[in-house]
Amino acid sequence: MALPADRHPSASHYDIVIVGAGPVGLMLSTCLARWGYKIKHIDNRAEPTPTGRADGIQPRSLDLLRNMGLKSAIMAHKPARVYEVAFWDPPKSGKGIVRTGTWASCPSFIDARYPFTTLLHQGLIERVFIGDLEKNGTHIQRPWTIKGFKSDEKADPDYPVTVDLEHVDGTAKETVKAKYLFGGEGARSFIRDQLKIGIRHKDPIAYVWGVMDGVVKTDFPDIKMKCTIHSAHGSIMVIPRENNMVRLYIQIASSTDPDFNPRKTATAEEVQAAAKRILQPYTIEWERIEWYSVYPIGQGISDRYTLDHRVFLGGDACHTHSPKAGQGMNTAFLDALNLAWKIHAVEAGFAKRSLLETYEPERKEVAEALLAFDNKYAKLFSQRPPAANEIHAASAQADADQNSAAENEFIKTFKESCEFTSGYGVFYKANAINWSPSHPAQSPVVHPKSTKLVPGRLLRIADVTRVVDANVVHLEQEIPLNGAFRIFVFAGKLSVTARALRDFADNLAKRGSFYTVYARPDAATVSHHEQHNPHSHFFTICTVFAAQRPEIEISRDVPPLLARYRDHVYADDRWDRRVPDAKAAAHAKMGFDEEKGGVVVVRPDGYVGIVVALEEGSATVDALNRYFGAFCTKKLGEVAAQL
Amino acid sequence: MALPADRHPSASHYDIVIVGAGPVGLMLSTCLARWGYKIKHIDNRAEPTPTGRADGIQPRSLDLLRNMGLKSAIMAHKPARVYEVAFWDPPKSGKGIVRTGTWASCPSFIDARYPFTTLLHQGLIERVFIGDLEKNGTHIQRPWTIKGFKSDEKADPDYPVTVDLEHVDGTAKETVKAKYLFGGEGARSFIRDQLKIGIRHKDPIAYVWGVMDGVVKTDFPDIKMKCTIHSAHGSIMVIPRENNMVRLYIQIASSTDPDFNPRKTATAEEVQAAAKRILQPYTIEWERIEWYSVYPIGQGISDRYTLDHRVFLGGDACHTHSPKAGQGMNTAFLDALNLAWKIHAVEAGFAKRSLLETYEPERKEVAEALLAFDNKYAKLFSQRPPAANEIHAASAQADADQNSAAENEFIKTFKESCEFTSGYGVFYKANAINWSPSHPAQSPVVHPKSTKLVPGRLLRIADVTRVVDANVVHLEQEIPLNGAFRIFVFAGKLSVTARALRDFADNLAKRGSFYTVYARPDAATVSHHEQHNPHSHFFTICTVFAAQRPEIEISRDVPPLLARYRDHVYADDRWDRRVPDAKAAAHAKMGFDEEKGGVVVVRPDGYVGIVVALEEGSATVDALNRYFGAFCTKKLGEVAAQL
Repeated sequence: MALPADRHPSASHYDIVIVGAGPVGLMLSTCLARWGYKIKHIDNRAEPTPTGRADGIQPRSLDLLRNMGLKSAIMAHKPARVYEVAFWDPPKSGKGIVRTGTWASCPSFIDARYPFTTLLHQGLIERVFIGDLEKNGTHIQRPWTIKGFKSDEKADPDYPVTVDLEHVDGTAKETVKAKYLFGGEGARSFIRDQLKIGIRHKDPIAYVWGVMDGVVKTDFPDIKMKCTIHSAHGSIMVIPRENNMVRLYIQIASSTDPDFNPRKTATAEEVQAAAKRILQPYTIEWERIEWYSVYPIGQGISDRYTLDHRVFLGGDACHTHSPKAGQGMNTAFLDALNLAWKIHAVEAGFAKRSLLETYEPERKEVAEALLAFDNKYAKLFSQRPPAANEIHAASAQADADQNSAAENEFIKTFKESCEFTSGYGVFYKANAINWSPSHPAQSPVVHPKSTKLVPGRLLRIADVTRVVDANVVHLEQEIPLNGAFRIFVFAGKLSVTARALRDFADNLAKRGSFYTVYARPDAATVSHHEQHNPHSHFFTICTVFAAQRPEIEISRDVPPLLARYRDHVYADDRWDRRVPDAKAAAHAKMGFDEEKGGVVVVRPDGYVGIVVALEEGSATVDALNRYFGAFCTKKLGEVAAQL
Repeated sequence: MALPADRHPSASHYDIVIVGAGPVGLMLSTCLARWGYKIKHIDNRAEPTPTGRADGIQPRSLDLLRNMGLKSAIMAHKPARVYEVAFWDPPKSGKGIVRTGTWASCPSFIDARYPFTTLLHQGLIERVFIGDLEKNGTHIQRPWTIKGFKSDEKADPDYPVTVDLEHVDGTAKETVKAKYLFGGEGARSFIRDQLKIGIRHKDPIAYVWGVMDGVVKTDFPDIKMKCTIHSAHGSIMVIPRENNMVRLYIQIASSTDPDFNPRKTATAEEVQAAAKRILQPYTIEWERIEWYSVYPIGQGISDRYTLDHRVFLGGDACHTHSPKAGQGMNTAFLDALNLAWKIHAVEAGFAKRSLLETYEPERKEVAEALLAFDNKYAKLFSQRPPAANEIHAASAQADADQNSAAENEFIKTFKESCEFTSGYGVFYKANAINWSPSHPAQSPVVHPKSTKLVPGRLLRIADVTRVVDANVVHLEQEIPLNGAFRIFVFAGKLSVTARALRDFADNLAKRGSFYTVYARPDAATVSHHEQHNPHSHFFTICTVFAAQRPEIEISRDVPPLLARYRDHVYADDRWDRRVPDAKAAAHAKMGFDEEKGGVVVVRPDGYVGIVVALEEGSATVDALNRYFGAFCTKKLGEVAAQL
């Protein structure tokens, strides 16, 4: 979305100042740069992360990176892929360690495109984002730091935030004005401190961890798997990396130790010696150490993510926890994504400013869940190693019956933790954008009983065939991360829904509809090559028929308004193992009748907003007008049309 | 494979001189550069192909590019993907054109990883190869041309070829000595002419084609599909391209025309006007023309691919045909691949020089088949447009019963042409490397009756789980194109084959076995990180168990010789829709008993060499010793061991 370059009053006025170029800052910056915003992005390091730090990309984050077109650049570095976690414990009798079980990273009951964790050095991931940013004209200013800021909407309602920046060696200073300031500075956030936002320590136990990346020679058979190893000599976690590297996490101290000292440290040699003792009877030698660090970490959560909805925090500035579940970078990505599209919706004039008020509750809830999970996960590992057959039974049962009441605590924790670590467990609670029975959009057509979609959760994945070129595609990936709401019209069977589909298009085209009200001013002159946003920057529409591809003739079967999105017309004609008897698998997976279809509105970040039946007459669009009316800037629907 | 840098007598001595940096020259150069050979590679163009020319990568070629690690760089250019071909013809009554059917590019009866044709401008493909070459220290010398050469094994048995090279503007000259010379100069090959090798015109009909790449605006619904359009105003072929481009092929003249002139030409405007007439009632306008060319082309095939097995030809220098089936670049790749590994096998001291004598018959046979197919394909399109239901029936029947005797001519041609255009139809006939009942390796264990593999055809694809890291992988892709023979040990059920597997390893380890005789001199000091060739440059071994991954413990279940390839031990535990009832799908797809397994030797280029039962005792390795003995330099087996 190209915004006029001269819309800011001066060169030192920005849409946003972003402090910190780690995962959270880079994701925010990358989204906003693509959507045309002017960004001042600083980082106090001279270079991107050279070695070490975070490295785990969860399945759902990989979906997101693919949706941004960044996945292939990341995979080109040949990251390690973790499909299973292995548990090693002392044997019932005798010395040493034995494998007591393995556990799929992302078992088959989770319908994931990429059922594995991708492990790659954070610096390589950062560089992929930085390359994309530079293509969009945003350069990170290094090594610069923030010295102060103030936010005063009364003094300057358009650019309320004033930020003082300085080169880290003090040789240069700059003061800029911005609409927003974002603190993605990590756990020791200057901005959070200045705002006097406290950290609540959920779990009072603090730990000191040693972490070592290196290349090893070992006869330990699971060195290429993620392993949790408990032994008489202590515990260790093994995580495989790219380029034959292995990361080891060793707990050096815990606040439950009688002589706990949060500044306790250990040399690399001490950690290696400990690892050798723990891995007995297996041997391990280091060929090279890439990175070694010792750091204390406790479970903390920021009391607030913002005070005034102008200055925001995200990532490690808001939540710290153990590195065991590999969630840090992934949670950071989703913090930034959540905020990015909301800032865009507000600044582009689509949503009311109050939309920004959903950032903190949505993301803080997830952080709370993450910390609770982190605790449970740790206990699950430390208290009782699950046996192989137990995990197998849990997985099979989860597969067979996802709604069984007979779930025991172990199965429940197993399922939850798989969903959580894969990223598919993240969901948002009811609010203006996530429909619920208390949402202003109330109508008999809303949330048809059969639907398997849940507002606030991700759209289910599905393969379909694109009509114009017969390409088999991933439906959930078809609309790129373009800041627009995604409207999926599951059009059912043509002979049944022809009228309903026409009525849907006719009602969209009406003067007061959400679709018409937010039309692009330049809609008449948009290139015919524009695939996603020919009519509006805020909506992209996909139409999916329960039919074989050759049966669909776009010019005959699809109303012109929908046919304009000709690259987004699909045949639901691909067999899916999860619904083997369905004729139209995508319809079935969403819980729509294969004849009657239904409509799903998906938020720009991929979470379902609302599900509506596809009915003849105006009810379907009326319901959507009410849904969007709950957070959009303009009056929608009949009322608006009559004005 | 690192070869000593100083093994040539002077700086002007090379392993090979390659003339032409189109697809055939680049594939040959890329393979040989990776395997350590010293290459003089010239091209008479100052730059890689700037626009136009070949663009179709067939499914099997994409497998090959992936096996070389080049696929992702090609896919990063976002090529078009053709899944279906559409046929348009005049309606039974009335004017204009109607779609009379569509046809999958690579229907489901072909078990392909990538069931589509990838379309991308040849220059972008060339640049991917050039980038890889440069990583391996080979630079293409441009714009240089060949002025003369002679080949005399008596005068210099080591470097028999002398080649005179010159800058195209005549300002510089160079004479080099080489072991081989390769002509990949295209249809007008200087080297072929100098060798006085004739061209046989298989089909006497010659054509003049016009080809135009451009960006269009049209309401023709299949502009993103590959289309063959016949109309009262002439015929046209539509091929989608990257970046919204479309390629149109128009036949401008045919030698069957009463006034045929092979120099007949047409302007871009004339071709556009013709296209507009043919596409009626649809409209088409050009926004931009990227490339336009008119060229006469006939079906030709070179009488020989070499005279002395020192100077070789490949690619368009050997075979020309219509562009319709998109086979040119793909056939060129396979010419080069076939020659590359054979040169390597001979020069590395593994195979007898006579192995090179298999290049011409293997590749010429394919070219003959290509020309025959090209003819049939053209007729199939021109004589009788197949109806949609006819193709559907043919496809369904092909799916249901691949050996049905009831096939009619149409179904047969349909199947053949799908196999051919996908690249999976290429096969090599019986010779020393492709076992047959007349091969010297005769034994009751050779070619067990149940096997579904055919020597000279590609290995079937299969998903398996790698044991060390639980990654789900494509078995046929697990060994990179490293010039080595691939030995797949389908080890069946552990409890049944434990003894046979141990005997197999013990016999491999015997003094006179093919495996031991060609061991690396430095095998004792090879890094433990070496995954593919720890013991020999000529073999990589994979072991696949019919078991669930957690059941396999490498240190317990796999004999040490095989366990050294620890990254190549797999569990055959992935469900496959093509063999839904199999417990071990990969075993089943290869036609091996799930308990007893079997051994497959695959040539370095991916084609099956021989299939042998896995039996207790020495019979399995004995048979392989006889197989390799048919073309290897040393005596193998018991005889050798007794010396």
